[in-house]
Amino acid sequence: MFECVPNISEGREQATIDAVADAIRATDGVHLLNVHSDPDHNRSVFTYASESEEAIREATMRLFEIATARIDLRTHHGAHPRVGAVDVVPFVPLEGTSMAECVAAAERFARDAASRFDVPIYLYEEAAKHDYRRELPTIRSGGFEQFPHKITDERWQPDFGPSRVHPTAGVSVVGARVPLIAFNMQLGTDRVEVAQACAKAVRGISGGLRFVRALPIELKSRGIVQVSMNLLDFRRTPMHRAFSVVKEEAERFGVAVISSEVVGLVPADALYQVAEWHLRIGEFRKDIVLEERIKLRTR
Amino acid sequence: MFECVPNISEGREQATIDAVADAIRATDGVHLLNVHSDPDHNRSVFTYASESEEAIREATMRLFEIATARIDLRTHHGAHPRVGAVDVVPFVPLEGTSMAECVAAAERFARDAASRFDVPIYLYEEAAKHDYRRELPTIRSGGFEQFPHKITDERWQPDFGPSRVHPTAGVSVVGARVPLIAFNMQLGTDRVEVAQACAKAVRGISGGLRFVRALPIELKSRGIVQVSMNLLDFRRTPMHRAFSVVKEEAERFGVAVISSEVVGLVPADALYQVAEWHLRIGEFRKDIVLEERIKLRTR
Repeated sequence: MFECVPNISEGREQATIDAVADAIRATDGVHLLNVHSDPDHNRSVFTYASESEEAIREATMRLFEIATARIDLRTHHGAHPRVGAVDVVPFVPLEGTSMAECVAAAERFARDAASRFDVPIYLYEEAAKHDYRRELPTIRSGGFEQFPHKITDERWQPDFGPSRVHPTAGVSVVGARVPLIAFNMQLGTDRVEVAQACAKAVRGISGGLRFVRALPIELKSRGIVQVSMNLLDFRRTPMHRAFSVVKEEAERFGVAVISSEVVGLVPADALYQVAEWHLRIGEFRKDIVLEERIKLRTR
Repeated sequence: MFECVPNISEGREQATIDAVADAIRATDGVHLLNVHSDPDHNRSVFTYASESEEAIREATMRLFEIATARIDLRTHHGAHPRVGAVDVVPFVPLEGTSMAECVAAAERFARDAASRFDVPIYLYEEAAKHDYRRELPTIRSGGFEQFPHKITDERWQPDFGPSRVHPTAGVSVVGARVPLIAFNMQLGTDRVEVAQACAKAVRGISGGLRFVRALPIELKSRGIVQVSMNLLDFRRTPMHRAFSVVKEEAERFGVAVISSEVVGLVPADALYQVAEWHLRIGEFRKDIVLEERIKLRTR
């Protein structure tokens, strides 16, 4: 099974979000699993899956068509970094599908979409053609506003499409990756410097946990701040560890963690891992879970 | 689907445990999900499921036959209370099966087994015929050793079978109940009074959490003690709350919780609940779990 989790730069106009969701739902053989929109981020994440590579590419093409027709990045404001109307399109292998199949799907999709919509496309993560542009934050640095300059650099020629930024849709990043968890923690303060300190403490690049990316974000509509994280490998850097680091750092400022949220979906294994750790279950195996055991024994 | 989770009074003789497991596995249409044996408890728990009521009764009859032939309670010693070679046989409704169907299965099974093996059988929980003997601890109080006296009391006539204790197999308790979680916590001490204090703090009957039963148990083979719990309704008294009460009480004695274990199987929902609580996920719904969402959308 293939999963696809595109992020588009629209989290406020419900009509656009609904149009995209409807188009995905209307694609034969594709299951829309989740839609997550955030008005402060001004961004939506669609999660869908299919057993057919062709069907999942078709649904993604429809998403691309609607997003590029409706989103104008020149007037887009949001708390989350972005370079494109369709900002990033990861293909993710689920049960029965290999990473190589997802890389192939990403490449085919990127080639077709770039030519059809006249948008420059960069391949990332497992689909990257160059090591130095494997990671999303590197490709996205500078954002839509700086990209007209960045794209003139020879190192930043796109993998597909024209060598100039699309005036309203920017550029897109397409690739294949292992499942990641988009995990946000809300802090009981409006001081963005607290979220900044927490993000710095937890993210791998600044000395924190190896498989965590983190950004401080102001949730102006709620009067609080957020640490917005990507957990890139939850088996090696588990959710509860990222949670603890942020919680401790926030406490140093006298600030509490008031809630957290998963953007999109979370694998069951990641939650089992949290429960197992907190309950100190000595010899946890997934097959102590009733439903997992039944699945194993009855198929 | 029907689940059955009999507990037999043998946790040391591997040949007996294997014979029972083999007999369950050999029953057409029955899936053996788990076997948990404990030498200190001197007790084993078998978990199996079937879509057929007849098949699950057949497997349980085979278990009864082997256990009554091989176990002699007169020479049985173990840390866990017991009244029978086949101590307790709960039928549990899983997806697609009602409690009424499980009550009917339990009654049919109890009638047949009592007559075939000449063992007194008491119906408990949802299958109980009398309110005062609905709960397992009440039926089991006094244990095998006191039962020859107890059974002479008119209030303790069995529901099926003879009015005298079987010389080697004792009496059995059969019934139907909602899924429970058998959850044990190991403490870093050999002082049984610490486990006693923790059990008293956490169990509903002595002022603790409503849906928790708890006993202190010495794990002599490991030189430590254990709080052995039954969580009777994990949605109302969740695992993490029981864990916290025991942990705090143990800390008062300078003792740490060194591990925990699930005896048999645990529903996925119970673990999601622990993860959700510890991560403070604001609006947790089961369908943020990738596998649950796929199950919902593809069936």
